[in-house]
Amino acid sequence: MTGSAELISIGTELLLGDIANTNAQFLAQQLAQLGIPHYYQTVVGDNVDRIQKALAIATGRSRILITTGGLGPTPDDLTIAAIADFFDTPLVEHPDIWEAIQQRFARLGREVPPSNRKQALLPAGADVLPNPTGTAPGILWEPQPGLLILTFPGVPAEMRVMWQETAVPFLRSRGYGQHLLQSRLLHFWGIGESALAERVAPLLDSPNPTVAPYANRGHVKLRLTARAPTAAAAEALLDPMEAEIRQRVGDDCYGRDDDTLVSAVGALLRSRRETLAVAESCTGGGLGQMLTDIPGSSDYFMGGIISYSNAVKTSLLGVSPDDLATYGAVSVPVAQQMACGVKQRLGSDWGLSITGIAGPGGGTESKPVGLVYIGLATPDGEVLSFEQRCDPSKDRNWIRYVSACSALDRLRRRFVMIEPNNTLL
Amino acid sequence: MTGSAELISIGTELLLGDIANTNAQFLAQQLAQLGIPHYYQTVVGDNVDRIQKALAIATGRSRILITTGGLGPTPDDLTIAAIADFFDTPLVEHPDIWEAIQQRFARLGREVPPSNRKQALLPAGADVLPNPTGTAPGILWEPQPGLLILTFPGVPAEMRVMWQETAVPFLRSRGYGQHLLQSRLLHFWGIGESALAERVAPLLDSPNPTVAPYANRGHVKLRLTARAPTAAAAEALLDPMEAEIRQRVGDDCYGRDDDTLVSAVGALLRSRRETLAVAESCTGGGLGQMLTDIPGSSDYFMGGIISYSNAVKTSLLGVSPDDLATYGAVSVPVAQQMACGVKQRLGSDWGLSITGIAGPGGGTESKPVGLVYIGLATPDGEVLSFEQRCDPSKDRNWIRYVSACSALDRLRRRFVMIEPNNTLL
Repeated sequence: MTGSAELISIGTELLLGDIANTNAQFLAQQLAQLGIPHYYQTVVGDNVDRIQKALAIATGRSRILITTGGLGPTPDDLTIAAIADFFDTPLVEHPDIWEAIQQRFARLGREVPPSNRKQALLPAGADVLPNPTGTAPGILWEPQPGLLILTFPGVPAEMRVMWQETAVPFLRSRGYGQHLLQSRLLHFWGIGESALAERVAPLLDSPNPTVAPYANRGHVKLRLTARAPTAAAAEALLDPMEAEIRQRVGDDCYGRDDDTLVSAVGALLRSRRETLAVAESCTGGGLGQMLTDIPGSSDYFMGGIISYSNAVKTSLLGVSPDDLATYGAVSVPVAQQMACGVKQRLGSDWGLSITGIAGPGGGTESKPVGLVYIGLATPDGEVLSFEQRCDPSKDRNWIRYVSACSALDRLRRRFVMIEPNNTLL
Repeated sequence: MTGSAELISIGTELLLGDIANTNAQFLAQQLAQLGIPHYYQTVVGDNVDRIQKALAIATGRSRILITTGGLGPTPDDLTIAAIADFFDTPLVEHPDIWEAIQQRFARLGREVPPSNRKQALLPAGADVLPNPTGTAPGILWEPQPGLLILTFPGVPAEMRVMWQETAVPFLRSRGYGQHLLQSRLLHFWGIGESALAERVAPLLDSPNPTVAPYANRGHVKLRLTARAPTAAAAEALLDPMEAEIRQRVGDDCYGRDDDTLVSAVGALLRSRRETLAVAESCTGGGLGQMLTDIPGSSDYFMGGIISYSNAVKTSLLGVSPDDLATYGAVSVPVAQQMACGVKQRLGSDWGLSITGIAGPGGGTESKPVGLVYIGLATPDGEVLSFEQRCDPSKDRNWIRYVSACSALDRLRRRFVMIEPNNTLL
């Protein structure tokens, strides 16, 4: 059996926006991994007529229908009844399911509400898709040749267990998942999505692996997806493509897959046995928080000083009051002195600082919202500074986040400069 | 114009499960608030044929089509071209949009990639749906009588601004959203969802306003929703219900609607003209970042010291090395000395500190993951400490976030104690 799959998510709570459709995301990932093509997703409410209209459309264009939601015991749980009726098939009670439901309630010391009995009713001819962690079983049914239906409850934890334990082995037994899709993400900082797309333009037409750009909060990504019979064969397709992209794009690439700017910088500091301290003004601690997101970051991150007020810049970081008065808190000299000061006061190898105007207020013509200076004090006594102009139409959080990322990226690029052949780069 | 709306989310990344469809959730909530019925959502990939098939189905059953995604500059951004072609309408270039894109890049000091020019092409006859925070405008188009199309980019932040600033006023001008649903959120810290539900149990059956509990990352909320012809009538229903709830629950309620623990603490500090400094160990700057999320926080937040290493606790905060050795970094004396030290070193009125074990490693039998001490040094020289035990099955980020919230809540409750009649409480 071949053909594409389609997801039908059933639940009025989705149409009210009470919850995000994370089930669809999970199943989409799973289908991609199994190499099952999947072109459409539909969301409908708890309404028999509209469920059946969605079924009519889906059966006309897909060969595997996967539903989530509407298997519970309450009157608005209509999925099984709607499907059975759509295929003109009667419901039959499965005594073993009803028995299991009763036992489950007995174990919890609770009485079974009579409404739960409807969960034992399945379309005649459908197989049970067992639910080991809940009362609502699903079905696994071929109501007509070449069409397969799998139903799952809407509770994500129950759905996932059922998918992994029952649906995946079944789909593999039907020949799916032999040919897998393997993806690799490459991460970039300091280049826009369209500029990146132009630099790798000819590769965007590659049929296998495919290459697709994404942008997200200042980061840009390329997703490479290879289709191959084995993981090794997929890697063999991905490796040369990654090499080609890195060769075209250069230092703007900071990692792959789960790498982050913070993990890249952390791995480099650890490999060099060097320590870092930070001095933060507009980010207010956000850079330190990012650095300490990673367990074990205490190996290289000593701490920092949040110099939100000018008084703290002077008293704790040794920034010159004259320079503060002459150049302002958002300036090259202040960024440099913050970086030197925190390096010295904390006794770290590197000092990294951020001072900027995060907005929405506080901007002037010469120093607009989004203007940020980054200072970097190196182990050998050099003091660098970098000007960063964030898009002023973005909000305060965005500017603060991008500032912290840019500071990390400046440190990363410094490592690239002094140690271009480090394999962590 | 009446009729139901339908969402079409366009993007192969949704079909690969790279992201959850949070745009659909947001728009679903918005449609519900405007009272616009909405029965179907569809997801398709970046493929003209399938986008047009989805359009064919949607135009047959809905009167307002809302698309997200596919407005970017890259070759896989196909939404506008697919829609124009579906309605047999040529694309025309809008010189003002192209000019705005060029200016935007110029402001950022970057060259405009030629591919961005296609974002200035819109179907003839379509109105521009301006995008104040990105390059991709949307369209607002009635391609045939009684059918309205609104397109948005897939980037959630851009989509939301466009929705609020342009789409909502337009839809209201077309007669939607007259009978309004007005919600009010009440926020709680320090009480569990079921305990809260029990304290307000009889109110949960109220038909108008309805009262529903939610839990989210340690916070618990009650959503009060009133249905009324005018905002004033809705407020008149909400006010007595809020009063009744506050009377039942007491100090665990820290605010309503957009209030946060940080905004509550900030407003109190500002009203008292007092300043705060923080000393952070396990949160690594996260508390400072939260405090500085708010523009103008420099009025009361001076800064802090991220004492991630013990050396920094000693050298910069004056924590006793003997106490560090005897009691460990996660202990009452260290939390207290951190709070005193930061208050003294920064010259603030209040000092607030956090030291704890965020995990996943570092826990012991007597000091498990999730154990956190909060120190609070008050303006009159008192030094308090609080033990917080976070659920150790939660992840590092959760424990760090809850620690920072708990520290803020301890400060808030101190204000309640010394100034019970402050109207900000």
